[in-house]
Amino acid sequence: MPPHPLTTTPLHFGAFPITPQIFHLTPLSFALVNLKPLLPGHVLVCPRRVVPRLSQLSAAEVSDLFLAVQRVSRMIERVYAADALNVAIQDGVAAGQSVPHVHAHVIPRRSGDMDSRGGGDRVYEMLEGEEGDVGGALREVERTRRERESDGKSESEGDGKKRAFAKSDAERLPRSLEEMEEEARGLAMEMEKELD
Amino acid sequence: MPPHPLTTTPLHFGAFPITPQIFHLTPLSFALVNLKPLLPGHVLVCPRRVVPRLSQLSAAEVSDLFLAVQRVSRMIERVYAADALNVAIQDGVAAGQSVPHVHAHVIPRRSGDMDSRGGGDRVYEMLEGEEGDVGGALREVERTRRERESDGKSESEGDGKKRAFAKSDAERLPRSLEEMEEEARGLAMEMEKELD
Repeated sequence: MPPHPLTTTPLHFGAFPITPQIFHLTPLSFALVNLKPLLPGHVLVCPRRVVPRLSQLSAAEVSDLFLAVQRVSRMIERVYAADALNVAIQDGVAAGQSVPHVHAHVIPRRSGDMDSRGGGDRVYEMLEGEEGDVGGALREVERTRRERESDGKSESEGDGKKRAFAKSDAERLPRSLEEMEEEARGLAMEMEKELD
Repeated sequence: MPPHPLTTTPLHFGAFPITPQIFHLTPLSFALVNLKPLLPGHVLVCPRRVVPRLSQLSAAEVSDLFLAVQRVSRMIERVYAADALNVAIQDGVAAGQSVPHVHAHVIPRRSGDMDSRGGGDRVYEMLEGEEGDVGGALREVERTRRERESDGKSESEGDGKKRAFAKSDAERLPRSLEEMEEEARGLAMEMEKELD
């Protein structure tokens, strides 16, 4: 892969290095593609500074973050041919936050998109349930990566293991780094159209 | 009741006049108490301009709105002794929006607060279901108000009818205008502490 088009600075979502997943970068915020999107196009927007609570952000950070949310929302709705979006922040552990770093979920929606999965309100339920546990999924991948490193396995050799793990969650697979990186590059190009 | 402490300008949430429910007012946004809060302290923050979609807001409106959300969140968390907050925007009909006017739900959360109602994720499910149908509840009240006016009944005479209607929804009653106005006045005073 060529170097990341947006940054050479390592960026973190909580403790997780996620630079390859970034598709939009502003002075104080970034947007990343999701390891286990609840629906196609489900992305996250974060302040660069790693703090858990919305109340800890400066006024400049709040403005920058939500202008990024608005810009990302427009792009996601267009690219995923959606009619609407859910924007949701789990601000603290008791609200379902699984990574202690402010993040706005942006989820593109279409009428009836959740009918086969229990109706529209299920998207929220999944956000708070195990299916939306961004932290758990990231920890799983980080554990797999470390196991591979200690086993001396290459990235491609490890894929079989990850796919076997993924089979138990037929609807929503944790995606490979390559897949996320490819999506991030595509969305980064789409973001440029929003900045015209 | 004395005149509203914050404004004499009629403000609307969608088509609904909600000036008495306002407890915070900024140059471009306002916050209102909810007719049928999902949990105590569940409030809404809106841009003053009545547009349905986040993408239609100017940069100034986005900044002003989310700085208001942050300020309101701090107050709500303190006053309702919460540990966390859900901040959620149903941006368009296919995302569950029932009033075509951008509004951020701010819902205070505590560990286990939803245990008796099916678990933490239920708060989201309720948001999209009938229980969270802000539009339906407001239309119901508006209909009752109009019926009273055409019957020539006073506000107090009509209360019996409203209470009877409310009995079918034992958990979460639509509240009287007086109750909401009283809460709004209390929260307006609490907001002043956030501005120190």
